[in-house]
Formats: sequence, structure tokens, C-alpha cells
Amino acid sequence: MAAESLPHELIAKHRPTLDQALEAIRTRAYWSPHPEHPKAYGEHGSLSLAEAKAAFDALLGTRLDLGQPGTDDWVGGEVSPYGIELGVTYPHADVDVLLPAMRAGQGAWRDAGAELRAAVCLEILKRISDRTHELAHAVMHTSGQAFMMAFQAGGPHAQDRGLEAVAYAYFEQTRTPGTAEWSKPQGKRDPLELTKRFTPVPRGIALLIGCNTFPTWNGYPGLFASLATGNAVLVKPHPRAVLPLALTVRIAREVLAEAGFDPNLVALTAEGPGEGIAKTLAVRPEIRIIDYTGSTAFGDWLEAHARQAQVYTEKAGVNTVLVESTDDYQGMLSNLAFSLSLYSGQMCTTPQNLLVPRTGITTNEGPKSYDEVVTDLARAVDGLLGDDARANALLGAIVNPDVKARLEAAAALGEVALPSREIVNPEFPEAVVRTPVIVKLDGAKPDAEAAYLSECFGPVSFAVAVDSAADAVDLLRRTIREKGAMTVAAYTTSRAVEQDVEEVCLEEAAQLSLNLTGGVYVNQTAAFSDFHGSGGNPAANAALCDGAFVANRFRVVEVRRQA
Amino acid sequence: MAAESLPHELIAKHRPTLDQALEAIRTRAYWSPHPEHPKAYGEHGSLSLAEAKAAFDALLGTRLDLGQPGTDDWVGGEVSPYGIELGVTYPHADVDVLLPAMRAGQGAWRDAGAELRAAVCLEILKRISDRTHELAHAVMHTSGQAFMMAFQAGGPHAQDRGLEAVAYAYFEQTRTPGTAEWSKPQGKRDPLELTKRFTPVPRGIALLIGCNTFPTWNGYPGLFASLATGNAVLVKPHPRAVLPLALTVRIAREVLAEAGFDPNLVALTAEGPGEGIAKTLAVRPEIRIIDYTGSTAFGDWLEAHARQAQVYTEKAGVNTVLVESTDDYQGMLSNLAFSLSLYSGQMCTTPQNLLVPRTGITTNEGPKSYDEVVTDLARAVDGLLGDDARANALLGAIVNPDVKARLEAAAALGEVALPSREIVNPEFPEAVVRTPVIVKLDGAKPDAEAAYLSECFGPVSFAVAVDSAADAVDLLRRTIREKGAMTVAAYTTSRAVEQDVEEVCLEEAAQLSLNLTGGVYVNQTAAFSDFHGSGGNPAANAALCDGAFVANRFRVVEVRRQA
Repeated sequence: MAAESLPHELIAKHRPTLDQALEAIRTRAYWSPHPEHPKAYGEHGSLSLAEAKAAFDALLGTRLDLGQPGTDDWVGGEVSPYGIELGVTYPHADVDVLLPAMRAGQGAWRDAGAELRAAVCLEILKRISDRTHELAHAVMHTSGQAFMMAFQAGGPHAQDRGLEAVAYAYFEQTRTPGTAEWSKPQGKRDPLELTKRFTPVPRGIALLIGCNTFPTWNGYPGLFASLATGNAVLVKPHPRAVLPLALTVRIAREVLAEAGFDPNLVALTAEGPGEGIAKTLAVRPEIRIIDYTGSTAFGDWLEAHARQAQVYTEKAGVNTVLVESTDDYQGMLSNLAFSLSLYSGQMCTTPQNLLVPRTGITTNEGPKSYDEVVTDLARAVDGLLGDDARANALLGAIVNPDVKARLEAAAALGEVALPSREIVNPEFPEAVVRTPVIVKLDGAKPDAEAAYLSECFGPVSFAVAVDSAADAVDLLRRTIREKGAMTVAAYTTSRAVEQDVEEVCLEEAAQLSLNLTGGVYVNQTAAFSDFHGSGGNPAANAALCDGAFVANRFRVVEVRRQA
Repeated sequence: MAAESLPHELIAKHRPTLDQALEAIRTRAYWSPHPEHPKAYGEHGSLSLAEAKAAFDALLGTRLDLGQPGTDDWVGGEVSPYGIELGVTYPHADVDVLLPAMRAGQGAWRDAGAELRAAVCLEILKRISDRTHELAHAVMHTSGQAFMMAFQAGGPHAQDRGLEAVAYAYFEQTRTPGTAEWSKPQGKRDPLELTKRFTPVPRGIALLIGCNTFPTWNGYPGLFASLATGNAVLVKPHPRAVLPLALTVRIAREVLAEAGFDPNLVALTAEGPGEGIAKTLAVRPEIRIIDYTGSTAFGDWLEAHARQAQVYTEKAGVNTVLVESTDDYQGMLSNLAFSLSLYSGQMCTTPQNLLVPRTGITTNEGPKSYDEVVTDLARAVDGLLGDDARANALLGAIVNPDVKARLEAAAALGEVALPSREIVNPEFPEAVVRTPVIVKLDGAKPDAEAAYLSECFGPVSFAVAVDSAADAVDLLRRTIREKGAMTVAAYTTSRAVEQDVEEVCLEEAAQLSLNLTGGVYVNQTAAFSDFHGSGGNPAANAALCDGAFVANRFRVVEVRRQA
């Protein structure tokens, strides 16, 4: 064991960060220990941009051997949305060997206690942070995110979400004391006295089913929540986004081993093309927790069939922006334009339906008709993405052919207010880069419903003409209730409309952003402060991160004896 | 609204109790605000024994009209295990009318906030406490518990569990602040600033499916956890134990109305014979939370089919006592004799399988053979129940014919070490009162397995001869894993055996009592200190009470806007 990894030293090293995280989730003020600026890296053990690029390039075409037991094959095949074939192969597990091996170290991990587990998790996060630039490349070349977004969302923001989960897990496990002396008065007789010991115990092995678009951001909360509560974690990445999670698993295994624990507490299994191992793994009796981000169909399947496990899902939703009035018309337009463009709308939080009264809206620039609002928004998007370099930096690449196909089909759904443009990426000529399409739909027409009441994941937005603000509020309610929503936004200067929108969001459990006109966007949430999803509408059955996200990943066993 | 029910006055009245409850669940030291002694009642607004008896007698043969909307019938038919026909009829709901009416008041209940909701819940509990003697009669004449047990377990202990749930619910809802100011530095530019509001919102309507044996003790945690987190609660009692929960609902409705809330936030629906309305109610889309205590078959059905709801179940289990050695042989025997006898073993926590090495055990009175241990235990039970008055006070009445049938069939399963005796209850000659049967089984014989690996609910225990302590530990593990356990007990002076038993309980998530020889019994748990069940083995998917029991009964909705 490395000297630095002695338990008390690990705890001493990370306790201040843990305490700050605990304070942040309590106050929900801004906080992060993970720098957002690329230049903050390259010293104190962290990789510089150049070192990281070299490390990433050295990975290409190699076998990523994690030293796991029960590896029966090596599989890979990732092709970057930017056109590079990664050529990395990963272990494919014989789970009948791997799962028992993962259980072997759970007793010692449980006995380590919540504080040491948290410290080990924070050491893993620190090592991940040190390799942020390398992970940024891995995220970029699996998700198609532009480098800066891959760096920030895949790096510090993902690490924040992981740390947040550790803090929640630590808090939850320590709110019951380790021991208690219980003395019950019996009048004149001696009191009844018991000594009680309370131990958080893991549920078993957790399965993390990774997603294509945000492998680390959406993966770290479940991974760290399960690990910090004593469970072993099997990581099953999306076949197109293995590398970021494989690097994560490698780091976790290194830290666990250095700290004297069994590295098999965290393991990876990749899969061959079309193998669909998640379905098999999810119903294994050893798997007691599942975290999943992806399609509604498979999320619903997991919830229905993986009955032996606690299942946490983030699925599809239809996100709405209600546009009724604003006192900062230009601010609204540029804020919305950014939200629609970022990562080519391939975020679960990107707005899809823009509800605008057909009678128009009031603004600080005077009344604007429905057509004017849509035209002005189209112009704002065009302006934002007019420069190809900036467009490439904002849009990234289309993550897979399905998104491209949906984008191309969208133009046929209604009148196109803003056509999608093809952008050339000089550095990666094979990348498919597209600007968003905005399609006008009449909310009163039944045939339009099929379009705007389905999730159209990708750079597609619908400007839905509605009869009135009240009509928009009704449609908002129906959309959340039937389809779910990760985000809702509204622009209104009317206190009455604001209250109606808030009431719908409270009743249907959706997270609401009001009148954002500056540098915060509806599709972004900050760990320690914002909840991602609510867990109360069909888009997700859990929120990142709250007590419910961690409380059922462990159980407390009490041993009591006469004092 | 009564003057005493003004919100700030209600909060001021109950805040000290809430704070004490919050402190108790944190330290898990002994605490209760609800007196256990019958003589503590009768002053300060609480009913005396005589007043309560008169109130109970006045209820018999009446219609308990709760003033609920959508009542389409009046149903009843409870017959006390002590022989009295209660003759009370209760509302049977047209749920298409009642459920919408229950939703109507939820907005105001949500807007009241966690603290006022907690205060209202504590006022309900106070009024219930004031009528403890009346509820004791109601519990006695539906469950068959002897009066003192009905008084304590159905009164103060149940109220403790309800208060504990309120405290957990309050804590969970307030760990996220109501508002937060978020300011993210942007280098030389102005910081990004948001004002955020966080509101706990209910999931919808909660359904409480009551049980026959502990209608209040097992009912209050779910009822109060759901109500305190903002949900309306529909109470569907067991058809043989309606009265205690109907009286509870009546009190809750009174307090809600006095505090200015819609009384329909808590409602009752009774059912006609064989109607089985729980199955219909459980899958209604309005029902988003279900609390259930009862058979494994229906609990499993709920978990599989009520997919729209959070389902909390307490089902059947097989509780084990491992007897390996003791330094207080007489203390062990009398403690076990009491545990087997209390309420004729009709507790989900009563030990069923006593595992004793066939080579005997070591004690402070020298070695005892398997036969001696069993004979001495039988003698201890006989001694405890030798006096008919004491036997009646401890045993209560057999709750239903199924229990009696199982008791009678048990004698054929093996050699009877202690036959069940019939006890006459002079006050209630029709009551079926029986002492426990102890049956010897050989753990090595495959045909015995069918008996000891099934729950035999009622006054039936199996003295299972095992090969060794190690064999007992293995059987303990198998029993918990396959059948679940609400409790485990062990008697051993060997540190090695103790560690093995503890390890099994930690790995299989079962609550363990070690070497109890005094006035605390394995089948009793104390609110604020002991967890009832673990939620981690097949006997129950939730524990009373922990963070996981409350955290998913509400969601937090965030509204953020530019500061």
C-alpha cells in the first residue's frame, strides 16, 4: 500500500473537501472543487493538455487490460463522431466468474465504514480530476461533444456530480450513529439497558448502464453513490462510449488496490456489437442496484423486469419553453438560441417545444407576433452559429445516424422557420455537424400533436402556436404528465402566468427555469445546487442528487445486546 | 378554526416534541412522549379507562359516519376474537368520487410547508394519544391482543412509530433549504447569479393497506410518513380490523378541518366480505404510494403490479433463534418463553425456529443436551403460563381460524415437546386462547425442511436439532436469504460464534438481538432507536423507520430565476 493511502491519511486528505460538499448540499450555494478552466490543469500532478493528448493518442489501437478476473474476450469498435476509429478493445466478462470475484471484497469494504469509503471515493475523483484533459478527449471522441464541452461537462461537472453523490451517501449512512446506549426507565426497578451497534450494509452488486452522450456526467452519480454505500459496481458502458468509463474504472481499481481494498469492487464489462448484455445482467440475482440513462423503452423494461434491484432511471422527456412575454427580448432570444444549439440539442435537457401564443407576445421592444418571435429566434440562432469555428465549438458532432435521420425528417413535419445547415469541421472533416432546425407547428391541429408530443432527440425544435397563455399552460401540463420533462422554462412578465406555470411544475414535479436571459441556460444544472430531473414525472424516476437517490442503496443492520 | 389551531400556535405547541424526536432518531437513545402506563391517562383532556370503555361501548352497533364524499354503501361485520360482534358499519367509497375529492386539498397542504404539516400530524397524534384507552379497546377487539398489550402496542408504541415517521419526514424535507442564492464567479466578469426556490411536493394519493394483528402499530408509520410529506392518504383497513383505523381517520379529519385544511386529505374505505378492493385500488393511477403489511403473496403482487406507486411492504418471514451457549441459562429460558408466548406468537417478530446443536449446549449450569434444552424451555413456557389469568393477559386470543388450524396441524409435524393447551377466558368465554406448541424437528431430515423453512404464523415453534454451531449459522443464512426474517436472536458465549452470526446478519441484512435474558424481548422494537425490519431481506422491502422510508414519498421541485 502506498504510504499516502493509509486510511487515516486518506481521510485527513479528503475530509475538508467532504465537509465543504456537505455544506454545499445543505445551503445549495455555488461551490465546486474542480476547476472549469483548462489552464488550471497541468501542475500538482494533473495532466497538461499536451500530456493528455499524448496519453489519449497512446491509447488508440490498444487493449485496455484492467486486470480483471473472468475476462473471456476483448471487444471494442468505437468510432468517434469526429471520424477516428479508436481501435481500443476492452474486457468482456464471463459474469459467472466476475460477479463472485466482485463480491469477495465487499466484506472489507463494508467494514471500512462510511468515512473511509468516502475518502477512497474522493481519492478516485481526485485522480480522475488529474486526468481531466485525457477524459475530455475520451468523452469528445465517443459523445461527439466539442472539446470544451467534453472537458467541462465530462470533466469538472461530472466530477462534481460524483462528489455530490458521495456527500449524500456519507451523510445518509452517518445520520444513524455507529453505536447507542439505550436505557429505558422502569419506575422503581432497574432500567432496561441495551447496547446497540448500527452498521450500514451494501445491497450487493450495482450495475451502471452507461449512455452515449454523457458517459461520465450521467454515470458518476450512480457509480459513486453505490460505491460509497458499500456496493461493488459493475460498469456496462454504452458500446459507442466505452473509453471514458473504462478509464474511470481503471483509476478506481488503482486507488482501491493502493488503499488495500479489492480492486474488483469496481469492474467493467464491454460488449460485442448487438450483444445487448444489459438485459441479461439486469436480472442477475447478484445485481441489486441499477443506474440507467437512455431510452424510455429500455428504462421501462428495467423498471418492470429487474424486480430484484433498486432501479434508478433517466429516460426520455419532452422539454417545453413557454414564451408569453419578456422585458428583455434580445436576452431571451440569445439565451434560447444558445440552449437550442449547445451540443446540437443532444442533451436530455434541451428544450424541444417552444409554446408561443398565436396572438403574439409583449416585450420590451413592443408586441411581437408569433411569426416575428419565431423569425427573430431563427435569426438569433443563425447569428450565434454564423461563424463556423464558433459553430463547431458549440455544436459538436452528431452522435449517431439516428439523430441525423430525425433531423432530416423533421423538416417534413411543418413549415421550416430555420433550416438546418451543414457545417464543415476543418480539423475533423468526417464529423457530421449540423445547426438546429426550427419547425413551426399549429398546436390546435391534431396531426401536429404526434410531432410535438414525442421526444425528437437532437437539434430539432418545434415552435408551437397556441391559442393563449392558458392554452400553453394546459399543454405544458399535459406534456409533462404524459411524456415527462427534464426541464421546463418560461418567459413571462405576468405574475399570474408565472404562478400558473409554477403551479403546473409543482403539481407535475418538473424543474422550472424562469426568465433566463443571461449566461445560465435551461439545459445546464450545477451540482450541489440544482436538481437534475425531479424523479416525479415520466422522464426519470430519480433526481440527481437527493436523499432518495442514496438512501436505498444500503440498509442498516442493528445488533443489540444487553448492556 | 379553533383558536388553538392557528398555524403558528400549532407549531409552537408541537415544535419542542418534534425537536426531541429529531434528537432521538439522531442519538437513538431511549425516548418517548407517550406514557406506557394506563394510569397516566384520564387527565389533561385524555380519556380515563372508564370514559374510554363507555366511548367504545357507545360505538358498538353504530354507523361510523366520517362525513366523506362519495360514500356508496355502509359495510362492517367485525367480530372480536373475544366473541363480541362489533356491529359497526363504515363508509364504502365510490373511489371515482372520493379520490378526486382527496386531491382537491393537496395544493393547500403542500403550500403549508413541512413544519406546519408536521405540527398538524403531531396534533393528530396528540388527539390519538388522548384516546389511547378507547383505541386499546378497538385494537383488543379486532386483533385479539390482551388489553394491556393492545393498550401499549396499539397506543403509545404505535404513536411513537407515527411520530418517528413524522420526524424523519420533516427532516428529509428540510435538508434542502427553502431558498438559495447562487453566485458563480466568472473571473473579471460579473458573476452568474440565480435565486432558487425549493418546494417539497407530494407524489399523489397514498394508500395504506392495514393488517389484522397490529392495525395501528403497522399502520401509523406509512400513514404519517405520507401525510407529513404532503400526500393525501386513503386508509383501507383489514376487514377484520377496521375500527382502530376508522377512529384514527376520524381524529385526523377533525384536526385537519380545525387547522383549516381539507379533511378529505385523510379518508377511509372499508370493504364488503370478499370484495378485495385493495387489488383494484393499488393500481389506480391516482395512487402513487402504497404501504402494506400482510402476506408475502399479496405483498409480492403489489410490488410487481402497482408499478405507478412507491410500494413499501412488510411480508412474512421465518425468524430464527440460534442457541449455542449461555452464561445465564434460566434467564435465556424465561426470556425465550416470554417471546414465544406473547400474543400467542402472532407477531411478525416472534421466533419460529430454535436451532439447537444435537450435541447440546454449554451453560452456566453445566452442559445441557438438546433434549434438556427443549424440555427446560417447555417447562419455562408452562411455568410462565401456568396461571390462567396471567396466561390470558399474555396470550390474548387467536386472531382467526387459520391460525388455530395451523396450530392444530403443527403437532403432526414432529415430536411434540410442549403441547398447546386451551385456556379459558372467564371474561370472554368465546375467545379461543391457546398456549404455544413446541415441536422437535431434525434439521438433517429433508422432510422436516418443509416445516421449518415455511412461515407458520401463530403459536408454533420448532426446536430444530442441528449438527453444530456452524451448521446452525449456515441454516440461519439460508433461512434469511430464502424466506426473510424480521428478527434474529442468538445465545452464545463464544466470540467466534457471535462473529459468525453477526457476519450472516450483516451479509443478509437481518436485525440481530444477542443474549437477551432480561426484560427486553427479541420480538419488541422501540421507535426512535430500533429498526423494525431491515428492508434488505425478503421479509420486508422497507425498515421502520429510516431515510429511505420517507425520502421517495415526495419530490423537490426547484424554481430558479435570474437574481
